[in-house]
Amino acid sequence: MNLLKKKILEEGRVEGEGILKVDSFLNHQLDIELLNEIGKEFKKRFEGKKITKILTAEVSGIAIAAITAQYFNVPVVFAKKTESKNLDKETYEGEVYSYTKGKTYKIRVAKRYISSDDHLLIIDDFLANGQAILGLKQIVDEAQANLVGAGIVIEKGFQEGGKLAKEANIHVESLVIIKEMNCGKIAFEENN
Amino acid sequence: MNLLKKKILEEGRVEGEGILKVDSFLNHQLDIELLNEIGKEFKKRFEGKKITKILTAEVSGIAIAAITAQYFNVPVVFAKKTESKNLDKETYEGEVYSYTKGKTYKIRVAKRYISSDDHLLIIDDFLANGQAILGLKQIVDEAQANLVGAGIVIEKGFQEGGKLAKEANIHVESLVIIKEMNCGKIAFEENN
Repeated sequence: MNLLKKKILEEGRVEGEGILKVDSFLNHQLDIELLNEIGKEFKKRFEGKKITKILTAEVSGIAIAAITAQYFNVPVVFAKKTESKNLDKETYEGEVYSYTKGKTYKIRVAKRYISSDDHLLIIDDFLANGQAILGLKQIVDEAQANLVGAGIVIEKGFQEGGKLAKEANIHVESLVIIKEMNCGKIAFEENN
Repeated sequence: MNLLKKKILEEGRVEGEGILKVDSFLNHQLDIELLNEIGKEFKKRFEGKKITKILTAEVSGIAIAAITAQYFNVPVVFAKKTESKNLDKETYEGEVYSYTKGKTYKIRVAKRYISSDDHLLIIDDFLANGQAILGLKQIVDEAQANLVGAGIVIEKGFQEGGKLAKEANIHVESLVIIKEMNCGKIAFEENN
């Protein structure tokens, strides 16, 4: 997706240790026009698939999922990270290991919002170490729902998430895959 | 906004102590069609006003703000609750007192995403005790930007947020105002 590559090259900031900051358009400030192009592209990538609901995790996936859902005409459900008094007691849970925090946290979806009849498309901003996507898959599996695939905006191809998702039989569509970010320079995989 | 009132009456669940759960359409599962109607209504309510950016706070405001922004053709910035390694060091801060947690937490926006030239519209899901809206106003004030107003989906008219926002000279447009929720029964203010 050339528009997205251009945006990443122009506005993304590489900050040591494989961190790519895209907060000018994707996860702090939101470029809504770009999110619409991203949504259209996900629709193309999953054309013809039966999808009844989009699943994401708070926080960064929410805006992308909401805009994308307009092209699929389906609702969104976002998994919650915190135990909130507003969340039902009956939940499906996934575990996510955070490398930066060095601990595992839980993500939860109220049972009433996913049923075994659902065909779910996961949407998220990044695929890096794969922990979020595997945690979301746990939720889908626990609900005995169908996982159609995962639409990812930016995959860090130099981390193991893509491999782990493949091993877990998740059909991943990443709009761009970053091959490497050496010396602050971003290189994309071209056959994507 | 009758569509919204209908949805609240059909799907909202009153759970003691003034808690209204609307997680089937507004803050866990998201009804994207309804969010689009909400976005259109905010556009009507703020017709003719100069707005350069929409400001909200994570988590529940994000989807509403993103969908609404499509009708204003402006970007969204959402204030972050957690200190993230991905957030700039230079931030504008607002303080939010949480009655449920009994403590004050900070919300932050990277300075680069709000300038004194900006005309900001706050969008949020609820106006209850008013703490979130006042925290967001602090951020706008610190940036010496212009606060056009605040679009709120559901105002709890029996709590003090509306009064506090008025005292702070914030032009609030609430799509529905709940007058009372006694014995599980929801009554709306009709002159809204």
